[in-house]
Amino acid sequence: MTAAFIGIDWGTTHRRAALIAGDGTLIAERADGEGALACKGRFGASLEALVASLPQASASLPVVMAGMVGAAIGWQAVPYLDAATPLSALARHLAPVAEAPPGKRWSIAPGYCVRGAAGEVDVMRGEETQLFGALHLLGADAADGSYVLPGTHSKWVRLHAGRITELRTYMTGELFALLRQHGTLASAMQTASADDAAGLRHDSVADDPEFLRGVAEAAAHPVLTHALFGARARVVTGGLAPGAAAAYVSGLLIGAEWADAQRQVSPDEPVRVIGEPALAALHAACAHHHGRRLESLDARQIQLAAWRALATQELTA
Amino acid sequence: MTAAFIGIDWGTTHRRAALIAGDGTLIAERADGEGALACKGRFGASLEALVASLPQASASLPVVMAGMVGAAIGWQAVPYLDAATPLSALARHLAPVAEAPPGKRWSIAPGYCVRGAAGEVDVMRGEETQLFGALHLLGADAADGSYVLPGTHSKWVRLHAGRITELRTYMTGELFALLRQHGTLASAMQTASADDAAGLRHDSVADDPEFLRGVAEAAAHPVLTHALFGARARVVTGGLAPGAAAAYVSGLLIGAEWADAQRQVSPDEPVRVIGEPALAALHAACAHHHGRRLESLDARQIQLAAWRALATQELTA
Repeated sequence: MTAAFIGIDWGTTHRRAALIAGDGTLIAERADGEGALACKGRFGASLEALVASLPQASASLPVVMAGMVGAAIGWQAVPYLDAATPLSALARHLAPVAEAPPGKRWSIAPGYCVRGAAGEVDVMRGEETQLFGALHLLGADAADGSYVLPGTHSKWVRLHAGRITELRTYMTGELFALLRQHGTLASAMQTASADDAAGLRHDSVADDPEFLRGVAEAAAHPVLTHALFGARARVVTGGLAPGAAAAYVSGLLIGAEWADAQRQVSPDEPVRVIGEPALAALHAACAHHHGRRLESLDARQIQLAAWRALATQELTA
Repeated sequence: MTAAFIGIDWGTTHRRAALIAGDGTLIAERADGEGALACKGRFGASLEALVASLPQASASLPVVMAGMVGAAIGWQAVPYLDAATPLSALARHLAPVAEAPPGKRWSIAPGYCVRGAAGEVDVMRGEETQLFGALHLLGADAADGSYVLPGTHSKWVRLHAGRITELRTYMTGELFALLRQHGTLASAMQTASADDAAGLRHDSVADDPEFLRGVAEAAAHPVLTHALFGARARVVTGGLAPGAAAAYVSGLLIGAEWADAQRQVSPDEPVRVIGEPALAALHAACAHHHGRRLESLDARQIQLAAWRALATQELTA
């Protein structure tokens, strides 16, 4: 296996690099905390150190980066693609890094900006590369449908004929973190495992009645600020055990996405989730609550499929 | 005028004391930052210092306190009253302070716990005293109707025949503060005047189109986490000027209360706001957007009416 290509998912706080061989084989991966915020002013040096840390990697390999590295807060602001541009054209729109030394083939994938019928605007950076991977993994026809990519900013996307036809982003993970770290719900949202991003007290979602109660509440009463105070009212009147509020709030926030999806996604349309197993399980519980089927795609396989496809197109360009 | 009674609105972070004469005249007021959180472990000494700072006040005057001073995080946890208890009975349910030295008539007003038809629970502490004041200022019959008491936790209350028949709390001010201080919207929510709690860039609400746009968005699209990300999407695509996001988010959050009120409050029911003039103006703009009339009551006059009525009942008890 000869190393031929490096793909980097470079987000706000973390990055993950994959070293790919000419035949598409994954040779090595590296993940670290050198996110876009931490690398301000020293992106080039940080990238060279990362490349040097990969086995068999030569400094002359082409590097494609995706994510917030291409935002205004990142290395170089890369304009968004318009939704009319098919995902299959992503490789042709990679932006060369202006600061790259001569001979380096460094480029950044553009995000997408999607405008709705009423003029509303939504954006993504990084997820377009995952969707490009899904398209290659599933095939263009089979990839039609709705996708949820959970996270700090949870994305709901509709793909049709290789294009992003709808995009709705929810500030789910960010709001959960804000409420858990600050404010009047924070102490009740502390759980035994501070690393448990969803705040569940149990090993499985199905075992946590407060998560499911939050999902049901989000479906019945859509005003989030009222539902959030409801968590506090239940805590101070003894109706919600200390430490259980995180699961309830998690249910309210993810449940709000699914309540909205009932209005936005037709009942017979398949929905797929691309995300970490723990978050995918929470979405599966929401899908079950609403009587919908959810197909779970392995986020790592999707990302590797994207790098392989980009490598092929980049190396033959 | 002989000083006869001290009323203290004692919240989480601030308190305000009023010294009342036997004939109901206001003799003096004092406000400071000695909130319940700051006074942990030294409430008695802090109260005695406050009393000593008031002119003509003797240490033997009866003191009635309302607000978070009666919560678990305060001086003494006073159980909530049930909504079946009329507001007129508030004076009979004042809880004596257990730590009070012999001869001191110190007491704390209880909050209310209101349960809805579906078993949902909501609570207030401090606002019950303002509503008691409104009842005395307006008269029992005229006081029927809906009230909004804006703030960190905005309260919507329905009064009927002197009882609290409905209560809905919204975490409006708290969420606004969280988003403005932390997270991805924080930088865009900074305005020239950091003291402007509503984030308006203009002298009057009617001049700020972003506040009104937020109100309209909240009415049309109720999923707050999506609308919040929409603010970010507009900022990064140039559709929302830096510094204008605070007014938009303020409109989204207060607008969510009014969108809910359209479902909860019948169109011919009067709505009154009890709050600071700046917040009352924001609610007036929301009422106008929804084609409703809003009557503004002076929060300070309401609070003084409450203390006068409590003084009368306390002194004749």
